[in-house]
This record gives sequence, structure tokens and C-alpha cells, in this order.
Amino acid sequence: MADKGPFLTSCIIFYLSIGAAIFQILEEPNWMNAKDQYILEKEIVLKKYTCLTKEGLDDILKIVSEAAGQGVTITGDKHRNSWDWGNSVIFAATIVTTIGYGNVAPKTIGGRVFCILYGLCGIPLCLVWISELGSFFGDRAKRLSQVLIRKGVSVKKVQLTCTALFLLWGLFLHLLIPPFVFMSLEGWSYLEGIYFSFITLTTVGFGDYVAGVNPNIEYPRLYRVFAELWIYMGLAWLSLFFSWNVHMVVAAHKVLKKRRHRHRHD
Amino acid sequence: MADKGPFLTSCIIFYLSIGAAIFQILEEPNWMNAKDQYILEKEIVLKKYTCLTKEGLDDILKIVSEAAGQGVTITGDKHRNSWDWGNSVIFAATIVTTIGYGNVAPKTIGGRVFCILYGLCGIPLCLVWISELGSFFGDRAKRLSQVLIRKGVSVKKVQLTCTALFLLWGLFLHLLIPPFVFMSLEGWSYLEGIYFSFITLTTVGFGDYVAGVNPNIEYPRLYRVFAELWIYMGLAWLSLFFSWNVHMVVAAHKVLKKRRHRHRHD
Ligand SMILES: [K+]
Ligand SMILES: [K+]
Repeated sequence: MADKGPFLTSCIIFYLSIGAAIFQILEEPNWMNAKDQYILEKEIVLKKYTCLTKEGLDDILKIVSEAAGQGVTITGDKHRNSWDWGNSVIFAATIVTTIGYGNVAPKTIGGRVFCILYGLCGIPLCLVWISELGSFFGDRAKRLSQVLIRKGVSVKKVQLTCTALFLLWGLFLHLLIPPFVFMSLEGWSYLEGIYFSFITLTTVGFGDYVAGVNPNIEYPRLYRVFAELWIYMGLAWLSLFFSWNVHMVVAAHKVLKKRRHRHRHD
Repeated sequence: MADKGPFLTSCIIFYLSIGAAIFQILEEPNWMNAKDQYILEKEIVLKKYTCLTKEGLDDILKIVSEAAGQGVTITGDKHRNSWDWGNSVIFAATIVTTIGYGNVAPKTIGGRVFCILYGLCGIPLCLVWISELGSFFGDRAKRLSQVLIRKGVSVKKVQLTCTALFLLWGLFLHLLIPPFVFMSLEGWSYLEGIYFSFITLTTVGFGDYVAGVNPNIEYPRLYRVFAELWIYMGLAWLSLFFSWNVHMVVAAHKVLKKRRHRHRHD
């Protein structure tokens, strides 16, 4: 095992270097444009409102920046309370799942200390729960296959059916269908919906897209509850997928070992 | 195993509900204050700059909000290029480690599509690499213990020393010392430094604190490189800690089983 280390380290260095170059090519021009645009628009604002000096505008921007840092919506007059109990549950969930969107984060000393203590116990608890949820679904799949085998379906067909059902479930429920929901409720494009699903279920959680937090949208009542359940189901699916993958690799390894053993004794 | 499911589910529901209530108590008043303050300050701005109408201010705020959404620094005249190659490497690292601070995120369609493909291969690669790095350090610890045992130190003493060294390494290198570095270079408080370390190494990554991105600070040359290496070392330490914990639990379980077996046969 230890001799894989240098190879893997080279792999990761190479992967980061190449990836960075591609991200730079794709994103840098867009950022440059946005920056130049912003500088230009600030100048236009100063010309339009003659009573506003450069220092005055900077003061306004500081006020805005500070409010944004405290989690206050800076445009419009609608302020979504991110710390009522319902939203706090969802915030707590972003800690224990380690998604951490960061659109909401504790700002007080007490909140931060509690956040550390909360994650210390909550992250392992959530990990165990998610893997348990994954094995629950795995058990259901096993029972289904046993019922089918008893009914006289061949083992190979049953295995194929279960694997196909499992992959289709993940593909449709966690990648292809949710973007349609987000398109109709959040007004995102299909790609934005897929991007949000991917960034959420891998627990990267950039927080540039978060479902159910736009203060200008009236969401259906149970939308955020379903969104939460969808996240847990997705994480359980991934946990099952990985344990099932590891299982497959181990099984394949055993078969290979047996074959080698037989060859030696022939 | 399956009967643990309902218990764990109750645990997580209880844990989220209680945690949410505590977060609400700690954070809601602060958010309310910040919101009221912001509304008041907007009114003061409108009174101070008489040429500025409410609509005019809203327009300015929209410009600011849009620029912030594109990753442009909104206050001051210094603009840190988040998409040069060096910063893109660090961005790529936030994907594969699933930390995902989100202070930098792709905004173009190409960038987002590539981000999904990049994470798809990169996250498993990084997971494998980190666990390999962890077992590398674990092997070093094993060798150290073998050397000590050969020198005539008792096995119990060696085990105690190695465990103590391992825990002290994690405690000092990843929790107690880094905040001092962040205090002197980032101007954060000690608690903010611990909060940043915890949120980073658990891969939650809210992004409210990110090391090395303040455009108004001149950082030492290799600071961000060391910060990156520190993150990987921390993740490897955690990986080792968990595999070592699992190992301990399994070993304890085996001892218990053997004892029960003996009792039965007595
Ligand atoms: K994260
Ligand atoms: K995050």
C-alpha cells in the first residue's frame, strides 16, 4: 500500500495544476469583465448623483458590505429571517452534513463556540445515520431480490434488475428530475439546477445557489422540508453507492484470488 | 444493525431540533439588530445625500449586489484576481476536498460544467490520497514504536507514548497553534482562528473566514502554500484518527467476544 503514496501525490498535484489552468481560462475573462463593469458603473453613479463624493460612495459601500457580512439582505425591503427556528434547523443540518453553504453562518461569539461543539458531536452522528439510512435501502433491495429469486427469476436477472433500479433511482431522483423542480420554483436554468444538486450532494456547498432562500419568492409550504429530505436521501444513496462499489471491488478481488489459486494447483 | 435505524433517526431529529433552538437564541437578536441598523443607515444615507432618491439607492445596491455575485470586491479600489493560476489551484483544492468555501465559485456555464466533471473524478481521488497520506503517517508511528520496543521499552509504554504524540500533534498543529498565525497575519481574534480551523478541517467551509484572501493585506510569499499543506495534513490526521478509532473499537470488540467465548466454555 505504501508505494502508492508518491504516485497518488503526483496524480493530485497534476490534477490540481491542470484543473486550475482550465478554470483560469474559463473564468478569468468573465471576472475581469465584471470588475471593469463595476468600476465603470461606480463612476457613472458618481456622475449621476453629483452630491455624492467618492468618499461618500465608499462609506455607503462599507455600510452595505457590513450588513451583507451579518447576513442581512442588501437589496430590496424584504428581509428573510435566517434565524427563526425553521431556518435554524436547516442551518444546523448544513453543519452536521458538512455541506456548509455559508449563506447563513453564526456571527456572535456564543454562536461560533456552540457551532464548534455542535459539529464535534453532530458530524460523526450524521455520518453514522446516513450510512445506516444507506444500508436500510440496501436491505430493502436485498429483500426484493430474494422475493424475485423465490418466484423463480434467475439470479443473474435479479442482480441486473436491482443494479439497474439502483442506478436509475440515483440518476433520476438526484440528478435529472430535481432541476425541473428548481426551474419552476427558483427560476433557475436546468444547468443551474444540476450544478446546485451536484454541489450539494457532494457536500461541497459553495452557497452561490441555495434552494428556498430567495426573499422575493413565495415557496410552497413543505418545499424546504422536502428539499432537506431529498438531500439526506441523496447522501444515503451515495453512501450506499460507495459501500456497494467497495463490496464489488472486494468481491472481484476474491474471485481473482481464487482463480489464481486454482491455476497454481492445476 | 437494522434496528439501530429508528433510534438513530430519533437522535438526529432531536439533535437538529435542540441545536436549532440554541442557534436561534444565540443568533436571532444579533441578526435583528444588524437588520434594523442597516434599515436605519439606509435612511440616514438618503437624508445626507439629498440628490439620492430611494429608487436611486436601490439601483446602486443592485449594481453592488450583482458585482458581489460575480466575485468582485465591492469596497475599496483594490481588486484581488481570484482566477489567476495560483488562486485557481486553491479553488480546485476547495472542490476536491469538498470544503467549498464559496468565496470563489464559477460563474460561466463552461466553468460550472467543468466544475461538475472536475469534482466527479477529483473528490474520490482526493479521498483516496488523503487516506493514503493518513496511513503514511500511521506507518511512521508504527516504525517509531518498533524501534522503541527493540530498544527495550515496554510495549505498554510505547503504545501510550505513540498515542500521546499522535493526539498532541493534532491538538497543537491543528487547533492551538494555527490561530496565533491567523491572529498575526489576518488580524483575527484567537476564537475566530479556532472557528476557521474547525470549519475548514471538518470540510464544512462556510467561507465567512478564508485565509489569505484579504486584498488589503500583504501576505508572506509562501503563506497560502503552507495554509494548503496545513489543510491536507489536518485532513490526513483526521482520516488517521478515525481509522485508528475504528481499529480500536474493532479490537475492543474482538477482546470482548473472546472473553464471552471463554466464559461460555468455562
Ligand atoms: K462543504
Ligand atoms: K461549503
